[in-house]
Amino acid sequence: MFTLVNDYSEGAHEKILQRLLEVNYEKIPGYGTDDFCRSAAEKIKMACDCPEAEVYFMFGGTQTNQVVIDTMCASYQGVVSVKTGHVNTHEAGAIEYSGHKVMTVKGIDGKMDPDSLASFLKEYMADACIEHMVYPGMVYISHPTELGTLYTKAELSALHEICAGYEIPLFIDGARLGYGLMAKGTDVTLPDIARFADVFYIGGTKVGALFGEAIVFTRHNMPKRFNTMVKQHGAMAAKGWLAGLQFDVLFTDGIYFENGRNGIEKAEKLRKALIDKGYEFLIETPTNQVFVVLDNKKFNELKDIVGNNIWSFPDDSHTAVRFVTSWATTDDEIDNIINFL
Amino acid sequence: MFTLVNDYSEGAHEKILQRLLEVNYEKIPGYGTDDFCRSAAEKIKMACDCPEAEVYFMFGGTQTNQVVIDTMCASYQGVVSVKTGHVNTHEAGAIEYSGHKVMTVKGIDGKMDPDSLASFLKEYMADACIEHMVYPGMVYISHPTELGTLYTKAELSALHEICAGYEIPLFIDGARLGYGLMAKGTDVTLPDIARFADVFYIGGTKVGALFGEAIVFTRHNMPKRFNTMVKQHGAMAAKGWLAGLQFDVLFTDGIYFENGRNGIEKAEKLRKALIDKGYEFLIETPTNQVFVVLDNKKFNELKDIVGNNIWSFPDDSHTAVRFVTSWATTDDEIDNIINFL
Amino acid sequence: MFTLVNDYSEGAHEKILQRLLEVNYEKIPGYGTDDFCRSAAEKIKMACDCPEAEVYFMFGGTQTNQVVIDTMCASYQGVVSVKTGHVNTHEAGAIEYSGHKVMTVKGIDGKMDPDSLASFLKEYMADACIEHMVYPGMVYISHPTELGTLYTKAELSALHEICAGYEIPLFIDGARLGYGLMAKGTDVTLPDIARFADVFYIGGTKVGALFGEAIVFTRHNMPKRFNTMVKQHGAMAAKGWLAGLQFDVLFTDGIYFENGRNGIEKAEKLRKALIDKGYEFLIETPTNQVFVVLDNKKFNELKDIVGNNIWSFPDDSHTAVRFVTSWATTDDEIDNIINFL
Amino acid sequence: MFTLVNDYSEGAHEKILQRLLEVNYEKIPGYGTDDFCRSAAEKIKMACDCPEAEVYFMFGGTQTNQVVIDTMCASYQGVVSVKTGHVNTHEAGAIEYSGHKVMTVKGIDGKMDPDSLASFLKEYMADACIEHMVYPGMVYISHPTELGTLYTKAELSALHEICAGYEIPLFIDGARLGYGLMAKGTDVTLPDIARFADVFYIGGTKVGALFGEAIVFTRHNMPKRFNTMVKQHGAMAAKGWLAGLQFDVLFTDGIYFENGRNGIEKAEKLRKALIDKGYEFLIETPTNQVFVVLDNKKFNELKDIVGNNIWSFPDDSHTAVRFVTSWATTDDEIDNIINFL
Repeated sequence: MFTLVNDYSEGAHEKILQRLLEVNYEKIPGYGTDDFCRSAAEKIKMACDCPEAEVYFMFGGTQTNQVVIDTMCASYQGVVSVKTGHVNTHEAGAIEYSGHKVMTVKGIDGKMDPDSLASFLKEYMADACIEHMVYPGMVYISHPTELGTLYTKAELSALHEICAGYEIPLFIDGARLGYGLMAKGTDVTLPDIARFADVFYIGGTKVGALFGEAIVFTRHNMPKRFNTMVKQHGAMAAKGWLAGLQFDVLFTDGIYFENGRNGIEKAEKLRKALIDKGYEFLIETPTNQVFVVLDNKKFNELKDIVGNNIWSFPDDSHTAVRFVTSWATTDDEIDNIINFL
Repeated sequence: MFTLVNDYSEGAHEKILQRLLEVNYEKIPGYGTDDFCRSAAEKIKMACDCPEAEVYFMFGGTQTNQVVIDTMCASYQGVVSVKTGHVNTHEAGAIEYSGHKVMTVKGIDGKMDPDSLASFLKEYMADACIEHMVYPGMVYISHPTELGTLYTKAELSALHEICAGYEIPLFIDGARLGYGLMAKGTDVTLPDIARFADVFYIGGTKVGALFGEAIVFTRHNMPKRFNTMVKQHGAMAAKGWLAGLQFDVLFTDGIYFENGRNGIEKAEKLRKALIDKGYEFLIETPTNQVFVVLDNKKFNELKDIVGNNIWSFPDDSHTAVRFVTSWATTDDEIDNIINFL
Repeated sequence: MFTLVNDYSEGAHEKILQRLLEVNYEKIPGYGTDDFCRSAAEKIKMACDCPEAEVYFMFGGTQTNQVVIDTMCASYQGVVSVKTGHVNTHEAGAIEYSGHKVMTVKGIDGKMDPDSLASFLKEYMADACIEHMVYPGMVYISHPTELGTLYTKAELSALHEICAGYEIPLFIDGARLGYGLMAKGTDVTLPDIARFADVFYIGGTKVGALFGEAIVFTRHNMPKRFNTMVKQHGAMAAKGWLAGLQFDVLFTDGIYFENGRNGIEKAEKLRKALIDKGYEFLIETPTNQVFVVLDNKKFNELKDIVGNNIWSFPDDSHTAVRFVTSWATTDDEIDNIINFL
Repeated sequence: MFTLVNDYSEGAHEKILQRLLEVNYEKIPGYGTDDFCRSAAEKIKMACDCPEAEVYFMFGGTQTNQVVIDTMCASYQGVVSVKTGHVNTHEAGAIEYSGHKVMTVKGIDGKMDPDSLASFLKEYMADACIEHMVYPGMVYISHPTELGTLYTKAELSALHEICAGYEIPLFIDGARLGYGLMAKGTDVTLPDIARFADVFYIGGTKVGALFGEAIVFTRHNMPKRFNTMVKQHGAMAAKGWLAGLQFDVLFTDGIYFENGRNGIEKAEKLRKALIDKGYEFLIETPTNQVFVVLDNKKFNELKDIVGNNIWSFPDDSHTAVRFVTSWATTDDEIDNIINFL
């Protein structure tokens, strides 16, 4: 079985495909200079309550992280991340490839603790040898994190304050932002993200687009010649309008948020059923990732069902599996899994 | 007016969009490990008459050039190109960004002359100072070239022989390959390309796909850990199947070749009409790019029509415009342009 | 006062300067193709009891680490180091600048624990996502470490075995190797280093040369076109013979080892006096670095003496100072410091 | 025979070696923070008549070119050079390694023609596709050039004006600057160099130092965190004072200029004798490089004498040899060569 394995297993919200069909034979200018990109950017700025924002559309997440970090950090700067941060683990060294060190602080359930960051920066910047060291040039966090957890508004505000104190940007990776914004109980809104982050991206690939991520620069801080540097990274698409069109659809009539909500509702349903059945969780998460710990006997019984969902091995006698819901997950899928478990 | 400006102005062949709709809710594994990619690769290998080929799907052309060159050249090697080669001109330094020099030889109408290449390599390799110089590590050509011209089979064979003599790969950029293969009078087939090139790519973006390029390694020479290096370059797509699906459609029932043929037929029709009307060409081309020289008076009369098609300024009193036909160009468009001219 | 601050505060062993004067007007070929380099290489190979070694002379330590790691790791590989490793801390990101991640394991007193390395590699290589991760491509250790500690022969052997098991090279940074080899009680000899390391360097800058480090490749594993890559890194000296001449002197009549012995003897004398006076050490070290913990009151009294020797602040009420002896340290200097303390 | 092969075949001006001996046991702070560096910088600023200059000492030429270009160009910028420029030919791709394209204009006898540069920049900057191209970010020239020729003051002024018009720095590689400044008939002084260049370096390696180049930033334009970036490039020397001391000696009592004068006088003597004997020159040069064309019969007779001096093969029946005089060349050497020829 290959289900709930990831949130990028399906195609795209149907309205996106319909819109692609409608405009298929229009002549559209290349490289993101088209009206779809312009319109999508306006809608995103409005949704962010950030009229001064600059919006730029990319095709994928690792690409976006690499380009944002490489173009916003000076060559002598690195990026600070928790150890579990995507840029530190699952990008095959894309950040180092572009010349920057990923400097790690210990995280808590995937989150960067403001106090840990403050201590790290304070001690680091005071080091007598700092001229011989990599300068911290940016702070990178994910919301939701790689472990499905969420920051509170107070935490984001604290991280923002610390960064501002050192005049280094706070970058929020929002690959799964839609699920974070629609989580039950979160007090963080999209305008909050735009207020606390100096730059962030709104993930499309995992939230109902075929592909695409929308970078939002919130302080008139899009790097000079950004276009050229994107091209230099091999990251500029001839048909840039494809990403623009998708975000234009996603930010019309709240589809992006609906997509997020579906992922959350399905995850909640699954979570509740698992609790009822007495399962234990590897970590408590309010978003679209559900981490369940199985003893190995149980795991082996269910291997055909959850073999593709293996996440980690907490100890010799347990296996953790991850279920990821998405904008496309149906009640049937959830019921199906629940029946098996 | 914005017409015949480029071959990436429209979306994709309708069968691609239909197929996307059909499979939209299927669960498909990520990162190119899916059946569409496998099936497309098999069809491409067959079309290339090269069963031992390895096929890999990328999202864009500059990205593909960067990744192929960077992963196949040693760090002390550069890539040889004609001055007008895309990697030397319009990739914003993507090759140098990844550490490799573009070493140029003079071209003729956008083509690399085998004799020039042979002389260049012979003299270069014999240089007493070669240890202090960049080693030529690959030869890059485009077919069709950036100027719409084509190599003959004999020329490709000669370039291949020279490269083989120095044990450096010949890389053919096929961003517009479909138009090259369907040009009237060409004696070069897709199996020829596969035979003479050590690596090449079949362009999708400009020949009827939404996006996507299929790299073909013809000599069991896909670099070790290619997947990881693609990711490291920020070039791996989560939904890699999107490219696979598109090439699967394009290489079913000859759609890729049909797409190429349409571009060629429309260009021929335009070319013929222009000759009849007494226009002169900047360069003779057998493919989907038509370069017309207008005196500036004429150009100014037609500015609203061809203002987006400006290519170059051959002298103070003339302007060259470029018309590019595509898989999607209709007879109406061509008639329309002809009427205006 | 500026004394015992570092082991690169003085010039060079007098015989080096004499030799420079003697040959000053000879015509010597450039770029390391001279007889001094050849002769020095032979002497080093003999001292290493490694006739098949290849020896290459560099000018500085960070440069050497950068070049060795970048040329021996594939582009998709990183280097494993303890957190306190020089490449991870005080090289301003020179390793990441050349595209490689420094992957850290926790160290013990600056040393890499074989068990920790084995666990790290085992778990890492078994990760289901490894294709999306940086591959470990080399293990980097320093002997002596950055904290002045030493590996035992058994530890080096164990690290060597682990690396061999994964077919990744073990690289030993020997910036202070002379002091390590002459430490009291060590069971590690230069031939041992050559036997356990796949590549290492013999530090000259800190052990009696004006500058210079001798890289020793022990398994016929000098990378192809190493010369060209050294030049490409900006690391090739026109007068490469300057480094060769210095190592030729240092490896004649055991001067290199004498230099090491002097540093050790002076450190031992200082250490003994400090123990006698009741001082406590931050860490026990057998080499030429002595780390002393002072309470802040004492530190402030001695500020004029040891102000340049500050190492760290173990807690709010203590300051650790570092004394570094060298090939040039005299008994007077040691007596002088002891009197003050 | 190995004579007049290059200007880096000998050691250093004796006063440098004497000074090294004198200070050998002093304790000198590391990384260029010492008094020799400070004193040398002051003397250089005075000699340049440029009190606002910032001076930084490096170890070698390729290293210097790489660091200056990489730290002063934005990542999307390349450096403009003549085809024969050292950065384009004999640095093994060190500039591309650091991510920057070398953009070439045709030179005349190794020199960049101001009109050619003006045309190149004008056309390039006006290109409609410039966003997809590498931006010219610096102009690089050598004085003397790689072919031993010299710019006039008027030419340097013109190049300076053009660069200033585009707000890109003019960088003068002065690896052999001493010989250029002391050439007969030149109207260019060191203060002129400082006035016209935004950054340049005074070569030590080829003009009487063991090694070392002094970078002079003339417009308060030393890049921020330059120290850290030098370290990141592996180009910072622990004993940075070694370069400072040498330049301190060279700029005391005019030794640098004397060194240059000796090279020039010996070259003039050789040139005169060659003219008297009826030899022809490959190129007219006023500096310390003399290029002589021999028919192959003559060359073969003299092979033992000039075999190491081969420069190029102008045609099938001639061989060009290069004689390079230096600060250390004696009348005897010149007489010797003359006798043979």
